Amino acid sequence: MTIQSSNNSDDDVKNVIMPSYFNLPALDISVAFPQATSASTFPPCVSDYFELDDLLTPEEKSIRNKYWEKAKFPFQIIPKIGSLNIAGATIKGYGCPGLSVTASALAAAEIARVDASCSTFFLVHSSLAMLTIALCGSEAQKQKYLPSLAKLQTIACWALTEPDYGSDASALNTTATKVEGGWILDGQKRWIGNSTFADLYIVKKDVPGLTVTKIENKIGLRIVQNGDIILRKVFVPDEDRIAELNSFQDTNKVLALSRVMVAWQPIGASMGIYDMCHRYLKERKQFGAPLAAFQINQQKLVKMLSNVQAMILVGWRLCKLYESGKMTPGHASLGKSWISLRARETAALGRELLGGNGILADFLVAKAFCDLEPIYTFEGTYDINTLVTGREVTGFASFKPASNRSRM
Amino acid sequence: MTIQSSNNSDDDVKNVIMPSYFNLPALDISVAFPQATSASTFPPCVSDYFELDDLLTPEEKSIRNKYWEKAKFPFQIIPKIGSLNIAGATIKGYGCPGLSVTASALAAAEIARVDASCSTFFLVHSSLAMLTIALCGSEAQKQKYLPSLAKLQTIACWALTEPDYGSDASALNTTATKVEGGWILDGQKRWIGNSTFADLYIVKKDVPGLTVTKIENKIGLRIVQNGDIILRKVFVPDEDRIAELNSFQDTNKVLALSRVMVAWQPIGASMGIYDMCHRYLKERKQFGAPLAAFQINQQKLVKMLSNVQAMILVGWRLCKLYESGKMTPGHASLGKSWISLRARETAALGRELLGGNGILADFLVAKAFCDLEPIYTFEGTYDINTLVTGREVTGFASFKPASNRSRM
Amino acid sequence: MTIQSSNNSDDDVKNVIMPSYFNLPALDISVAFPQATSASTFPPCVSDYFELDDLLTPEEKSIRNKYWEKAKFPFQIIPKIGSLNIAGATIKGYGCPGLSVTASALAAAEIARVDASCSTFFLVHSSLAMLTIALCGSEAQKQKYLPSLAKLQTIACWALTEPDYGSDASALNTTATKVEGGWILDGQKRWIGNSTFADLYIVKKDVPGLTVTKIENKIGLRIVQNGDIILRKVFVPDEDRIAELNSFQDTNKVLALSRVMVAWQPIGASMGIYDMCHRYLKERKQFGAPLAAFQINQQKLVKMLSNVQAMILVGWRLCKLYESGKMTPGHASLGKSWISLRARETAALGRELLGGNGILADFLVAKAFCDLEPIYTFEGTYDINTLVTGREVTGFASFKPASNRSRM
Amino acid sequence: MTIQSSNNSDDDVKNVIMPSYFNLPALDISVAFPQATSASTFPPCVSDYFELDDLLTPEEKSIRNKYWEKAKFPFQIIPKIGSLNIAGATIKGYGCPGLSVTASALAAAEIARVDASCSTFFLVHSSLAMLTIALCGSEAQKQKYLPSLAKLQTIACWALTEPDYGSDASALNTTATKVEGGWILDGQKRWIGNSTFADLYIVKKDVPGLTVTKIENKIGLRIVQNGDIILRKVFVPDEDRIAELNSFQDTNKVLALSRVMVAWQPIGASMGIYDMCHRYLKERKQFGAPLAAFQINQQKLVKMLSNVQAMILVGWRLCKLYESGKMTPGHASLGKSWISLRARETAALGRELLGGNGILADFLVAKAFCDLEPIYTFEGTYDINTLVTGREVTGFASFKPASNRSRM
Repeated sequence: MTIQSSNNSDDDVKNVIMPSYFNLPALDISVAFPQATSASTFPPCVSDYFELDDLLTPEEKSIRNKYWEKAKFPFQIIPKIGSLNIAGATIKGYGCPGLSVTASALAAAEIARVDASCSTFFLVHSSLAMLTIALCGSEAQKQKYLPSLAKLQTIACWALTEPDYGSDASALNTTATKVEGGWILDGQKRWIGNSTFADLYIVKKDVPGLTVTKIENKIGLRIVQNGDIILRKVFVPDEDRIAELNSFQDTNKVLALSRVMVAWQPIGASMGIYDMCHRYLKERKQFGAPLAAFQINQQKLVKMLSNVQAMILVGWRLCKLYESGKMTPGHASLGKSWISLRARETAALGRELLGGNGILADFLVAKAFCDLEPIYTFEGTYDINTLVTGREVTGFASFKPASNRSRM
Repeated sequence: MTIQSSNNSDDDVKNVIMPSYFNLPALDISVAFPQATSASTFPPCVSDYFELDDLLTPEEKSIRNKYWEKAKFPFQIIPKIGSLNIAGATIKGYGCPGLSVTASALAAAEIARVDASCSTFFLVHSSLAMLTIALCGSEAQKQKYLPSLAKLQTIACWALTEPDYGSDASALNTTATKVEGGWILDGQKRWIGNSTFADLYIVKKDVPGLTVTKIENKIGLRIVQNGDIILRKVFVPDEDRIAELNSFQDTNKVLALSRVMVAWQPIGASMGIYDMCHRYLKERKQFGAPLAAFQINQQKLVKMLSNVQAMILVGWRLCKLYESGKMTPGHASLGKSWISLRARETAALGRELLGGNGILADFLVAKAFCDLEPIYTFEGTYDINTLVTGREVTGFASFKPASNRSRM
Repeated sequence: MTIQSSNNSDDDVKNVIMPSYFNLPALDISVAFPQATSASTFPPCVSDYFELDDLLTPEEKSIRNKYWEKAKFPFQIIPKIGSLNIAGATIKGYGCPGLSVTASALAAAEIARVDASCSTFFLVHSSLAMLTIALCGSEAQKQKYLPSLAKLQTIACWALTEPDYGSDASALNTTATKVEGGWILDGQKRWIGNSTFADLYIVKKDVPGLTVTKIENKIGLRIVQNGDIILRKVFVPDEDRIAELNSFQDTNKVLALSRVMVAWQPIGASMGIYDMCHRYLKERKQFGAPLAAFQINQQKLVKMLSNVQAMILVGWRLCKLYESGKMTPGHASLGKSWISLRARETAALGRELLGGNGILADFLVAKAFCDLEPIYTFEGTYDINTLVTGREVTGFASFKPASNRSRM
Repeated sequence: MTIQSSNNSDDDVKNVIMPSYFNLPALDISVAFPQATSASTFPPCVSDYFELDDLLTPEEKSIRNKYWEKAKFPFQIIPKIGSLNIAGATIKGYGCPGLSVTASALAAAEIARVDASCSTFFLVHSSLAMLTIALCGSEAQKQKYLPSLAKLQTIACWALTEPDYGSDASALNTTATKVEGGWILDGQKRWIGNSTFADLYIVKKDVPGLTVTKIENKIGLRIVQNGDIILRKVFVPDEDRIAELNSFQDTNKVLALSRVMVAWQPIGASMGIYDMCHRYLKERKQFGAPLAAFQINQQKLVKMLSNVQAMILVGWRLCKLYESGKMTPGHASLGKSWISLRARETAALGRELLGGNGILADFLVAKAFCDLEPIYTFEGTYDINTLVTGREVTGFASFKPASNRSRM
């Protein structure tokens, strides 16, 4: 896992993130733009313009502040996240903290504010893999796996999509054939986050017949290690089959909560983008004035800030719907799709505001701009999520096209 | 006031609104589109997808429900609004109900859901004129004017903008010259809502030297009667001068609250647009299927619904900021500008969804589409409001251009 | 026909257009905004930034200049268009001028620059009705009808859409039953332009069984008189049946050319909007400077100008494809849909630039903004036209949704 | 220069581009998506929907076809571009081909269709560096440098922007002090394309006092080697000073033509994106049907195709204006800014169409999506270019903000 680092200092985010981003040394920012503060000094959060902090419970505030006060999020200590006690955030017992969904979402957003790859790593481990075990595993499985996963002593991934089935996730090809004492798996999985280094898959690491190939050449979430998994006659003993996972409906229970969490990644990323742009516009001068003094720039900045306020409110409401048992799949899809749409707009505006420096990962915004592309697409593309909500509010499923060919 | 009607039935909104819209008889909708429910049967509100009603206090809910349950808002009884006791909503005493800002905003939105002109009429009277007297008037003035205004026995307007000063509202030309026993006003005011029939202006109706000309040919808010006011040596006795209105800062106190209220007009209008489109797509068939079953239509509808959820949350937060004394001018400007931007987008999508019927006021969406144009512009254009917020978050005022001419 | 006028002067467009727009007297513009030139003095065309005039043939330039030099287009003389010899523009013989498609399109755009309703009136008469007779009529029918139509001594309309079939125009309900000596028509037509006053329909004016009701309450193209037509056992003698019109394919030949012409309406309207805004920004001052000196305003203006250049080029290319016999239905649909999309954006920007005056028809932009809504929708909505092109470039028809209901 | 390769085959673009993109092995596409044609088999160009090829002269067509027929552009032979005889395309004599501006632009677009980094490399060398010598060099300088540059035996770069001056390019800090026999240069340049390996700079390679550092961590145009250049008392002999380059006006002559060329990069890139998406939608199936059969996908595809038609026409017109001596700076700025705006939209749509594979450089669209970001910004950001045109059409320069600080 490339984001690990022996560097124990909390002080320099960039030293940790950037070299691993393209495996290159960091920019000497003073050459590029003398008056700039280095991105390694992450700016204080200035995006909570509507004081939305007021909407949080004391527990939620405390989770938020745990990261906020440091400003420079300690990436090098992802291995230490275990000791922070936020993995498997909403799970009660088994070494997990049993936080509210809102508190858990805030933690994910705070990580994403600095780096969306790190928050993706965390959500795959915590909200997909651990949650599946917590919701659908047997008591024995929970006791066996959750405590070490909660401490990040073992890392898990979660495999759903296949090369031929992305949006159409309910139609999959991988087969499990019952044999004496267990099952034989055959098939292929694709895009599986964390899969190149995880200890726990659908199956255990190093089981015969399992091959994992890292997916290269991604433009976003580059730190996340996605893999192509090939399963050729892989044997899974009965005891390792997730006990209560019997249908796609069960999977949907996991995806529902996961989608809420995922919706907070673009929120966090947009907050970080705004914070960076706000500082940059005050520091950078052109035509004899700080960029912050130009009409066009102010209008972009305010549009970004407006988006952030609205995104936080929508995300917060989604958490509250979930916590009160009212959240439908359509709610989650609406939240995830709309928030990621606005985040994409926010990132594009931020990239423009930074001019040439807006294409350098060193200034953070370019990286976040690219990271939002996979986020816009995973856990349901924008289009699919709108059609999920559309089905709910109209009563008509419109996923499939009519079978008729052209009348031409 | 053209929206008055002798029709005492609550049953038919259209009969009341439409004839006055273009002074024409209503469409026989069964000729136009046989399966359509008439817009006069206003659809139930289906836009509260995120159950935002939960965020309201019992008082706020009760205000909302007062209108909600009727669905068909009783426009013909605007004269009776007095007895509903919502004019001067936030004012305590003097015959006013002393509602919270949130409750007051909800009432405005509910009116705007059916007709934004009516809500504009109401806000000019209640949130600009009455509030000015409440915030800046003397005790005697409050007692003299507010009770009859609260009952809508007298109608007020409020005059700020001038032909030469719209966005640059702090630089005005109208003069008040002190003379014995009062003041002499000279100047011109423009765009003054309600001014063609109001009883109370800057000055009283029928005072010598006052001329009001109705502004015609508007494309939106056509029911609102805006006037050009000319003041030629108009005498105002000392007792009628608003006692504590000494500077533009005092005016800004009124505008701050007014801008919160105004932000709820596009929210209400967008809710009504969504409700209408939701029903229309289910009723109208093309290519053998309800329009609601088409991918492109569902995506538009969901985008509209998403916007509405976010707009309500932003508007609600703005009210709470005001109520807790934290709201800044930048907050109000951000709320009003962003909400009206999203409303404009929502209306354009709704207009598309209705196809040809989307250009007929009879189906409501076309009317709301046009009404949002003046709303986008009044109480600060979108551009000016973003620059107000921009000044607050950057510390730089960018309203004026540099004085230099072209280097060409 | 309300746009006719006994006023013989060419000098005042507004006097002619505006009163009929909402049947109201014109604004005294000097009250509204002292430094403004009245819209009745139409500004010179300044939108040909890329000197696209160079692309025109001498014939095409001469047609263009015929209108250009007047600047103030003589609406009151629409009855005189006959003497201008541009109706049935592309038809050779029968009193028609036999112009190129490009020349004919330029004439339509020049009319639309000042008023899109007038160009719609003209295109319904010339490009739909006259062209149908020219392409599909018998020799006798051409000789009987075209000469007086060319002189606008008689006015024609053209009836296709029905209440239940708009986008799905190939599936219609109106029936023609053969009887001795002719046909009996039964059915209903809707949205039929010019139908309230035309001399020639599917059938002749005043034939028994024909009822026409004007469609009121339109927000755009208000001067165009659209009608609901009811046909109850209307007898058409054999000689009046359009001789060679046997299938929807024949209709499509007419629609193909019509769609090219229609694509030039949003071009012309956008040119007029730009011209008006360009002048307004120089005349109107705020914060001590002409609006033309503000960054945000300049950016909007340049975006509009860019759109206009691209729209003209796309429209011009469409004409050339048609003239060379290469134009496909997909080409025409792409041209019409994309041009009207950009025109809608251009009009919205222009409306913003004019601030409060942007909602008054007196300043032209508000009127054009509203006129573009029906244009965006008629002769194929934006959505349908993109799917027509989509079918052509992919080989798949996607008009109909799948028949399956929700899986919910 | 990493794009060089000893591989002499024309057959596999990807093998050449991709490894150098992130220095990683190429994806085994059959694992990712079995039915996909590899991007190394570049699809035939299908984006010329309006047959814009007709607008080209025989010379222009022949230049275009030289690349077109290969479909797979031979990147590995960029060193062989010399023998293709297109460097210094518009220069007559000195070993240069003397092509028309249009022909030269088409060549640049064809390269950009496959890879925008390669076209940027080419334009820096040909349209900035060689053109400067051709337009402003002495006869001796032309004879000395151009022939080997035309054959790409030597490679040049061109240095204008500085760390503190990007958009405000006319205000620079680097100084040239006259000394006996030459000049002493002191200062810093930034973003200088090709500078890490060029033979010819402002000064010659390896001159004392010159340091070049590669700019890393770019998200787009990653193959282009941009450098930070530091000049510390660098001596330039009189004979090497560009003879006729005396003011920023002379630089502007070079920039004017360069901006025309640069405008064709987003055109070419958008064509390649469309071609790839068109094939992908037909090959990829979801929900039992090719993605090409879905409404939402068709609408996106057609929007992209429409944009491409309009972009080509605007680019072509810009060339013709230049060739006829009529092109103004405002024309070039409008063309470059508007085309890159539409290209950015086109790329975002294309990225969506490819779903998860839209974030992999292997499928080309993700790479082009990122490449368009620096293109949107270099040779004048979108904002600056609109203000250049804005100044020309309004007569007001609005680059600088007013000097006044906030009134808060």
